[in-house]
Amino acid sequence: MFTILPIKGYIDQIDGFYCNGVSAGLKPNGKFDVGFIYSDTPCECEAVFTLNKFQAAPLVHFQRYPKNFKTNFLLINAKNANALTGEEGIEDINAIFAELGKKFDLINPIMSSTGVIGNRLPMDKIINAAKSFDLSAKSGENLSLAIMTTDAYPKATMYEVILKDGSKFKIGSVAKGAGMINPNLATMLCFITTDANVPRADMKELLLRHTDTTFNAISVDGDTSTNDTVLLMANGKSGAYDKEAFSEALRLVMHDMAIAIVSDGEGAKKSVAFEVFGAVSDRDAEIAAKALSNSLLVKTALFGEDPNYGRIASTIGASRIECDPKTLTISYNDVVVYDKGKIVFDKECEIRAGEVLKNQTFKIKCDIGLGNGKFTAYGCDLGYEYVKINADYRT
Amino acid sequence: MFTILPIKGYIDQIDGFYCNGVSAGLKPNGKFDVGFIYSDTPCECEAVFTLNKFQAAPLVHFQRYPKNFKTNFLLINAKNANALTGEEGIEDINAIFAELGKKFDLINPIMSSTGVIGNRLPMDKIINAAKSFDLSAKSGENLSLAIMTTDAYPKATMYEVILKDGSKFKIGSVAKGAGMINPNLATMLCFITTDANVPRADMKELLLRHTDTTFNAISVDGDTSTNDTVLLMANGKSGAYDKEAFSEALRLVMHDMAIAIVSDGEGAKKSVAFEVFGAVSDRDAEIAAKALSNSLLVKTALFGEDPNYGRIASTIGASRIECDPKTLTISYNDVVVYDKGKIVFDKECEIRAGEVLKNQTFKIKCDIGLGNGKFTAYGCDLGYEYVKINADYRT
Repeated sequence: MFTILPIKGYIDQIDGFYCNGVSAGLKPNGKFDVGFIYSDTPCECEAVFTLNKFQAAPLVHFQRYPKNFKTNFLLINAKNANALTGEEGIEDINAIFAELGKKFDLINPIMSSTGVIGNRLPMDKIINAAKSFDLSAKSGENLSLAIMTTDAYPKATMYEVILKDGSKFKIGSVAKGAGMINPNLATMLCFITTDANVPRADMKELLLRHTDTTFNAISVDGDTSTNDTVLLMANGKSGAYDKEAFSEALRLVMHDMAIAIVSDGEGAKKSVAFEVFGAVSDRDAEIAAKALSNSLLVKTALFGEDPNYGRIASTIGASRIECDPKTLTISYNDVVVYDKGKIVFDKECEIRAGEVLKNQTFKIKCDIGLGNGKFTAYGCDLGYEYVKINADYRT
Repeated sequence: MFTILPIKGYIDQIDGFYCNGVSAGLKPNGKFDVGFIYSDTPCECEAVFTLNKFQAAPLVHFQRYPKNFKTNFLLINAKNANALTGEEGIEDINAIFAELGKKFDLINPIMSSTGVIGNRLPMDKIINAAKSFDLSAKSGENLSLAIMTTDAYPKATMYEVILKDGSKFKIGSVAKGAGMINPNLATMLCFITTDANVPRADMKELLLRHTDTTFNAISVDGDTSTNDTVLLMANGKSGAYDKEAFSEALRLVMHDMAIAIVSDGEGAKKSVAFEVFGAVSDRDAEIAAKALSNSLLVKTALFGEDPNYGRIASTIGASRIECDPKTLTISYNDVVVYDKGKIVFDKECEIRAGEVLKNQTFKIKCDIGLGNGKFTAYGCDLGYEYVKINADYRT
């Protein structure tokens, strides 16, 4: 028995964590572009990283610390991914922390970067900005603004968990997303902090468990970045812990952030759940659901609010899972448009399906009709804005 | 020793083949939408079909004929794919040919369809139009117009092959492409005819051999249609044949049509060859090359004429092939932008790379630096027109 309550505000509400965002001049017009999370005691820290073989320098830097290292400081910058920068990219991070160490008491500091791939970090700007940090600041809002790239709005979530003995802990997150969002993480950074007294061994296990149904279930464009990171920092200050409660709260945080990211896919106006069930295996359902969330023809039809279910069926067939048109049923929310091989898509059906598509969020349900395998993937539409953002991104 | 000469004109130049396109009222404004290829003697006939599990009715109909069947008639329609129509879709084809058989002497007639998925064929319109066919017509041009959907221009190619004994044969094709173009065929229909005296056994072998490096190497949007077809009809009338010469001429025809299709990808302005070499295997090179030609971030950067090579590197890393940034080299034509882990992308390099990207066609070369595996995939940019075409397609 436990209670999980959503609460307002940012991760700065968690005991012992401090954060802020400032302008280092990387973004134009004085927008925040560098931020930090500081813990006044060393934190247990685990992360899940991109499957891209060209992991960016901050990810390599992190993984060179000894197993089970603790940290008290995370530095984050936007506009430059510090990716494809080789050993020099890692030396840059060490040089930054050497400078900051002269002013702050840093324990195994770590870094996280997002932005353009293939450029060295602008060292002076980042060092100067970071030296101005006030480590007693409590502005999760500024931090959430600093890590945005093409995000349309900041992303944060917070929960309080009350265990049956009355003890409590908090868990929350700030995240950024927008482009390169894909099964197997994305250019997404998600920083989760908690004062739960979570054992180190549980952190990695639970992060991995929930990644598959949250961040690995979303897609904006099918690209996998060099920098994807889900980071969990736990300072244990509440003294409270229950594995089941913590797992569920962590899942909620990760689900919230995954949905926030896909809803804010570059230029996206619609957030769609692709529920595939009745497949011969969960794996088959996952393949089909992800194929749907990644299909350009499906995504542009969503943008056009066109109940073109033929593209949905064709994408399932092209995914090569076990399937048969004679057992397949497709619905938009509860409007059935294809029923076990029968075309039921008359004029009235088209109007009702079209109404569903006008919503900002809805489900596309595909019953493969062959077994019990199921998976839900989350996607968005793709329109002119996506092209505009990505054709102009560097310039 | 043999000579292959490109010649002007359409497949109607081949002895014994007749073709035309007419308007059945499926497209607006009296545009041609139904066509045929007729042979005055029965043809050997082989095809390669889509890997989509939901093969459209015409594909199922074709495959129900006995192995090694001969045919003298191919009927083609646009605007309706006759896909997801189940057994009734096949009965519709049989009903059409039963009607046409009353007027024409048809031997194992076959059909090919392209258009929207999930609607029954408009039988009366197609039958009425087909009954008006003049089987002595020689208009490959009208046929090439009738099979267009979102194609911007008709696609055709023709060659004459002169063997060392002086004997000659012709081989040519009409094709349609545009959307749903993807590795593993596409919504593409490609009809190849020849008067070469090619043995049946060679037809399938050579079609399959050349499909991998032509139609299976192109991508417009990563979707695989229910109707993809490459069809080869041979009437043997020339009496001439040499396997090596025929294979090379067939490869040229298929390559021409594949490049024509990808160059006319929906809204595409650029045709790009993604040459991946130095991979540990040809399979690895193919995976990386196809990942590049399918990446939305790469395609939108091409549209923006942005030499954003970081997206190219990231896509290779995300493809999970054996690779290492320290051995990777990336060039736009001959402008090296990333050299074995070193960033060489200074201002001058950026300007020179930008010049390459302004061309209508160019190469992106990726040397993985680990082995001898190679593969070239063909792709195009993705811009506003693609979104417009696909958001509005059905309406």
